[in-house]
Amino acid sequence: MFQSDGFRALERQECLRLLAKAPVGRVVYTRQALPAVLPVNFSLDTDSSVLLCTSRDSDLARAIDGVVVAFEADEFHAEHRAGWSVVVTGRAAVVTDPAEHERLLRTGPDSWMPMRDGVFVRIEAGMVSGRELTGASVHGTA
Amino acid sequence: MFQSDGFRALERQECLRLLAKAPVGRVVYTRQALPAVLPVNFSLDTDSSVLLCTSRDSDLARAIDGVVVAFEADEFHAEHRAGWSVVVTGRAAVVTDPAEHERLLRTGPDSWMPMRDGVFVRIEAGMVSGRELTGASVHGTA
Repeated sequence: MFQSDGFRALERQECLRLLAKAPVGRVVYTRQALPAVLPVNFSLDTDSSVLLCTSRDSDLARAIDGVVVAFEADEFHAEHRAGWSVVVTGRAAVVTDPAEHERLLRTGPDSWMPMRDGVFVRIEAGMVSGRELTGASVHGTA
Repeated sequence: MFQSDGFRALERQECLRLLAKAPVGRVVYTRQALPAVLPVNFSLDTDSSVLLCTSRDSDLARAIDGVVVAFEADEFHAEHRAGWSVVVTGRAAVVTDPAEHERLLRTGPDSWMPMRDGVFVRIEAGMVSGRELTGASVHGTA
């Protein structure tokens, strides 16, 4: 008998609620034709878009400005084989509007690394998906 | 004066040592032309390749068999703004050799989700990179 998968898909709002709690997320993108991933500090804006802070001339800013990327966060408890993961997929763009930049200086994320010429990058919450791994799974009869 | 970046690049062996301790990693790949990322249980083989366990007919196996992917793990302490991240980039392949499969049933990773027709996927440690974020950074004079 087919066993259950041991996870449940999460609704958009549940995904965003969990994402808002995560202390770090990971930007997933393409760099020099290869898959690339970078852990970053972030925050969620009021419209649920993901906000990052990076140097204007960083590899990251140049690689993702105007491009669809994925942004992932998770929390796992290996000993219980339980946890959750959320992925936001959407277009990234450097915030260029001066008023918006000023607003984000007050309300947006810090960068964990010191920088000159910091800019904010917004990732639209185009697609939001998530799953919760439950520790216990239902086993079918052999 | 230009500030230090607050991180140091890690040597290959240091990367692999840290990776071996991580309870979970993330496969970074392309799915339906979009960046995709999936947290998975894993182990390192004796040659430092990354081993995953998944269903033979899973989305993951079909998406990454024969393709270059990235595999990432990290550990961050948000309160101290410190931590590390490691990325292995290399070709993934489903393990098809029966003797190798048997060996990995004894020594390889478990899957966190129950499955039928489990297979192992090996990601070659082609490129290994990592960085350590140090909590304190050197500030230049204004």
